[in-house]
Amino acid sequence: MSVIPESNVDVLIVGAGPAGLMMATWMAKCGINARIVDKRGTKIFNGQADGLQCRTLEILDSLGFGHRAWREANHMLEICLWNPDENGIIKRSDRIPDTIPGISRFQQVVLHQGRIERFFLDSIAEASEIRVERGVMPSSLKIDESVVEDDAAYPITVTLRHLTEEEATPKQNSTSANGQSVQDGLFRSNLAKDDTQDLLDASKINAKAHSEEVIHAKYMIGADGAHSWTRNQIGLKLEGDSTDYIWGVLDIVPITDFPDIRMRCAIHSADCGSIMVIPRENKLVRLYIQLTTTQKNGDNSGRADRSKINPQMILESAQRILAPYKITYRKLDWWTAYQIGQRVGTSFSVHERVFLAGDAVHTHSPKAGQGMNVSMQDSFNLGWKIASVVKGHAHRSILKTYQSERRRIAQDLIAFDHKFSRLFSGRPAKDVMDAEGISMEEFKAAFEKGNMFASGIAVNYGASAIVAKEGSSAEQGDGTDVSVANAKHRVISDQSFCSGITVGMRIPSHKVLSQADARPWHLHEVLPSNGRWRVIVFAGNTNEDRQREKLWKLSEVFSAPDSFLNLYTPKGARYDEVFEVLLIHNAPRQSVTVLDFPEVFRPYDEFDGWDYNKIFVDEVSYHEGFGNIYGALGIPQDGAIVIVRPDQYVSYVGSMEKPAAVNSFFAGFMKEQHASDEAQTNGTKP
Amino acid sequence: MSVIPESNVDVLIVGAGPAGLMMATWMAKCGINARIVDKRGTKIFNGQADGLQCRTLEILDSLGFGHRAWREANHMLEICLWNPDENGIIKRSDRIPDTIPGISRFQQVVLHQGRIERFFLDSIAEASEIRVERGVMPSSLKIDESVVEDDAAYPITVTLRHLTEEEATPKQNSTSANGQSVQDGLFRSNLAKDDTQDLLDASKINAKAHSEEVIHAKYMIGADGAHSWTRNQIGLKLEGDSTDYIWGVLDIVPITDFPDIRMRCAIHSADCGSIMVIPRENKLVRLYIQLTTTQKNGDNSGRADRSKINPQMILESAQRILAPYKITYRKLDWWTAYQIGQRVGTSFSVHERVFLAGDAVHTHSPKAGQGMNVSMQDSFNLGWKIASVVKGHAHRSILKTYQSERRRIAQDLIAFDHKFSRLFSGRPAKDVMDAEGISMEEFKAAFEKGNMFASGIAVNYGASAIVAKEGSSAEQGDGTDVSVANAKHRVISDQSFCSGITVGMRIPSHKVLSQADARPWHLHEVLPSNGRWRVIVFAGNTNEDRQREKLWKLSEVFSAPDSFLNLYTPKGARYDEVFEVLLIHNAPRQSVTVLDFPEVFRPYDEFDGWDYNKIFVDEVSYHEGFGNIYGALGIPQDGAIVIVRPDQYVSYVGSMEKPAAVNSFFAGFMKEQHASDEAQTNGTKP
Repeated sequence: MSVIPESNVDVLIVGAGPAGLMMATWMAKCGINARIVDKRGTKIFNGQADGLQCRTLEILDSLGFGHRAWREANHMLEICLWNPDENGIIKRSDRIPDTIPGISRFQQVVLHQGRIERFFLDSIAEASEIRVERGVMPSSLKIDESVVEDDAAYPITVTLRHLTEEEATPKQNSTSANGQSVQDGLFRSNLAKDDTQDLLDASKINAKAHSEEVIHAKYMIGADGAHSWTRNQIGLKLEGDSTDYIWGVLDIVPITDFPDIRMRCAIHSADCGSIMVIPRENKLVRLYIQLTTTQKNGDNSGRADRSKINPQMILESAQRILAPYKITYRKLDWWTAYQIGQRVGTSFSVHERVFLAGDAVHTHSPKAGQGMNVSMQDSFNLGWKIASVVKGHAHRSILKTYQSERRRIAQDLIAFDHKFSRLFSGRPAKDVMDAEGISMEEFKAAFEKGNMFASGIAVNYGASAIVAKEGSSAEQGDGTDVSVANAKHRVISDQSFCSGITVGMRIPSHKVLSQADARPWHLHEVLPSNGRWRVIVFAGNTNEDRQREKLWKLSEVFSAPDSFLNLYTPKGARYDEVFEVLLIHNAPRQSVTVLDFPEVFRPYDEFDGWDYNKIFVDEVSYHEGFGNIYGALGIPQDGAIVIVRPDQYVSYVGSMEKPAAVNSFFAGFMKEQHASDEAQTNGTKP
Repeated sequence: MSVIPESNVDVLIVGAGPAGLMMATWMAKCGINARIVDKRGTKIFNGQADGLQCRTLEILDSLGFGHRAWREANHMLEICLWNPDENGIIKRSDRIPDTIPGISRFQQVVLHQGRIERFFLDSIAEASEIRVERGVMPSSLKIDESVVEDDAAYPITVTLRHLTEEEATPKQNSTSANGQSVQDGLFRSNLAKDDTQDLLDASKINAKAHSEEVIHAKYMIGADGAHSWTRNQIGLKLEGDSTDYIWGVLDIVPITDFPDIRMRCAIHSADCGSIMVIPRENKLVRLYIQLTTTQKNGDNSGRADRSKINPQMILESAQRILAPYKITYRKLDWWTAYQIGQRVGTSFSVHERVFLAGDAVHTHSPKAGQGMNVSMQDSFNLGWKIASVVKGHAHRSILKTYQSERRRIAQDLIAFDHKFSRLFSGRPAKDVMDAEGISMEEFKAAFEKGNMFASGIAVNYGASAIVAKEGSSAEQGDGTDVSVANAKHRVISDQSFCSGITVGMRIPSHKVLSQADARPWHLHEVLPSNGRWRVIVFAGNTNEDRQREKLWKLSEVFSAPDSFLNLYTPKGARYDEVFEVLLIHNAPRQSVTVLDFPEVFRPYDEFDGWDYNKIFVDEVSYHEGFGNIYGALGIPQDGAIVIVRPDQYVSYVGSMEKPAAVNSFFAGFMKEQHASDEAQTNGTKP
């Protein structure tokens, strides 16, 4: 008998949906030794349209492929609210913008999940040797608790089993194979060229079928969906209940005289239930159609009898709700029905060694378009932290912030979804005296307020070692204590220095010009997701003596032997391996050149010369208007220092006159690098 | 001995540089049966940085990949002019925007030619089965003059020879292999994944080596460069002479204290010649360095002795010109030297069957960044015309407009380049009495004026069957008579209906909103290059009775059995196969829906329902401002009709009250389609 092969890996990712792929992308961008496995043999293509929030698009853009999503997606600009008039006939009662104007340079769009996954796969392949290993599933998991706090240890042992092609092919869901014969190939055929490699890979599964291997990992992420095997292994649970109504979903090319079919619509009929219209790419429209108007239909377990549901009966429900408008179709792309509750994980990790992300720790209804977004943002939050710990840059303690930050978001999401579902599924009130009905004014107000939540921009992480703000970390998060271990390193931001930036939120983006070549960039474009911290100095008008002096003093502190730059950057690494120090001034651009500024903002390399890409100016551009970032972010002429995490969330804002606060902040969780420390990074790629 | 294989093809393209690839892209987009061959075994990667004009970016965007160029390119925003001060020391004397603000939604950028070719190859592969056949060159060309006017004939016979790999590998140029060892692999290694297929293809060349085949073609394009084999076969010549100075070119990562090294700079030293600085991608900078300050150095043939030129002596010239600033490098990517004249072809085709494009019909100096742009625009002008004739939609007579339009452009380019080169190579005047020197004011004025020409936006095609404007077609073009064959079909635009649109120029682009979903689009985005003519109706405020009545009357004319739509669209083809009828109104968007407009603007399909993508409104958007296309284009509230060619150039503007003029215009060159005509299109793909 052959010996079971064993190997070490820094990070093992289980599940190649959006949450797992996001994690793999971080590992690829940061050069971490990682593997990602998925039990399915190929991607699933049918259904799975998904809204992409503003914040998700910002994140995808920071990974280098936001533009691909933006170009291919259907853009939703306006929400039309339709409600019964005094005669009970549906009428358009209101219009609101789908995305609140001004909150992001992107707006919410809709794109098939298969495309998003494709962009991730391309990005991972460009940046690394990591490839999704399909037809592979874990069969056992052990954690050696005695070494979980040892940075050099591999406390996790996982056995992986390679499946046969048959085992790796997902069973057709009985509802989606029901009724008339519905092909999920419509979308796939349009994108055939993308699948060549996947099909080739699928054919390789057989060769290794039934073989096993053992992996020793430092960290593991279970991004393996609502029925998470990883979650079950580590004994964590989902809490909540099944309280939603029964909804049918049709993806069709509609033939209709309903005039707003290409708008996002929320339609409440007088007595027949509600529809949400989500216009998609390629003339497709997704309809969420309420099938029952009372809660908890079906058997006593809270589950409905799905055997009676088919596309024809869903369509007929839609026709009743939409009357007097007519709707039918000749092209049905996909359909389903669901009844789902709101649940959230009791904990998001064990020992900060095995983590859960995405559907494995939160489930809710799909109508608010949050699912894929929140899942991706889970691992977007976690990935850079793990990379930073694996590389030996940061202490393990920062990993606790994952649960603190993301479990709190999941709790907020569940509360939002609960309220939104109730309002959307309820019968409209006939008049102010109709206490059982839903007030349409209340619905509109909730919708508008929900838009801010749904954009993802409102996320505000609580105080912790990596978010320097006042208050209790436990209260601001999910209850976990994530305050700085050594109280002497606790730094508190002075929010008065940037009234337009909120510590804990993502930094807003406005256009700035590169000093060297006058090119306009959105601030976010110069903060790509590559694992680097940014220290941004807003220096004001450096032609004024006072500001120039402050800037030069600050540069001395940043360049000193005991500065964060020198203490925490590995010896021999490039000058911006860990921290990128950026300058945004507002002296007249043409009055200065890059060479007028301190060298810490334009480091020199003997092969590449000066670095011309770190100094920016807040000035009108020739072709793209005026970003006015000082005005928009409320930066005083005294200037300010802003520390931005690798995921674009703001850690700290404070005075230019207290540059040493930056040293203190990083002392709270970064590890001093010594020449002999280089051995520590040997788990990472060169 | 084996028989030489023979086959028919509608269009044969010789040469896979930018001009040839543009032609192949048109063929792919229009579904034309075409082949493209290139004698080289692989693409060439070194050197060949190129400016991309605004207009070129618009064109690439219309083909679906402008965004790829825009993202990867280095953007040049500002030109800095450096001239000697009173002490003969160079000083920055002026700054001007590199692209005139407001003329396009793109600005001039710089990108390696290899990347542009890659985008073309990807686009061709996505749209068709056409692939570049490398290591293949024509060895004989015959034209049967007796059938050149027969639409069904294949009058061109070409023998193609398949080369060995050795034959297909370009010889290293002796200058670029000279001096220190310069790798051209720097750029290639960054983009390795793109070359895999090319390398595979190259390995296939051997298999067919020395085999021959005979092709019978309807049309042929020689896009085979300055030494065009095709041009020589058909006996055409280049006219002009070699009058430029000697210039060296260095592509380096500069190490310098010159403060404007990331700007485009024109630097005139007092006595040591001139430099143009072109900042490129990946920290590279291209320097064009004047090596002699007198004209026609070298031997009596007008050619310089290049054996004495090497990177060190070019660098030393640069150092003299840039003093007192210092410049050196550790990374040299490529270098060359050139002395080139201005020449233009005597004719651009024979019998409108074999055409020449690109360097085959015009050569000039590279400094104005025009070469690749004008070459691509040659075949961008020609491709849709050939496609339209091959498909049997248009009469052959429109093919004459290629020479009329593009040879005139080449003549203008040569005159521009001659003037620009003289001003740039001359010694700066010491004072106003220095008659031999070049006035720096004159230089700046010429530079600014040249910018409009160099943008490509100023192109204004003369009167012809496909450009309905006043005056003599011969005078407005290169002398060729391209007026409408039958004078009764001559239509003259009424330019007063759109003061911001010039007939013969490309239609300007401003944002409009889609009526169906409120999404903002740049007008150009809804005019992709797919071979379709567009008839755009600016209907004004259709809530006013007068405008609504005009619109419905116009729709009747457009829908009548004898309308251009019905006469010239092949029977059984999709409603917008040849013409797309678009509506842009300025009634308040929320006061109307798509279903309020005549059906000719929202055609119905029994599977896809209504077409929601042809009605637009000029209104403020939620997130992207106000396009104000009525104001920008000077559209009166009376409305207007605009006919736009498949290449976005404007054919006609006129009154909404004369819809029959559209019928007359198309009668001048389109072919009536009858049921029996379908056989005519059998050379094209289904």
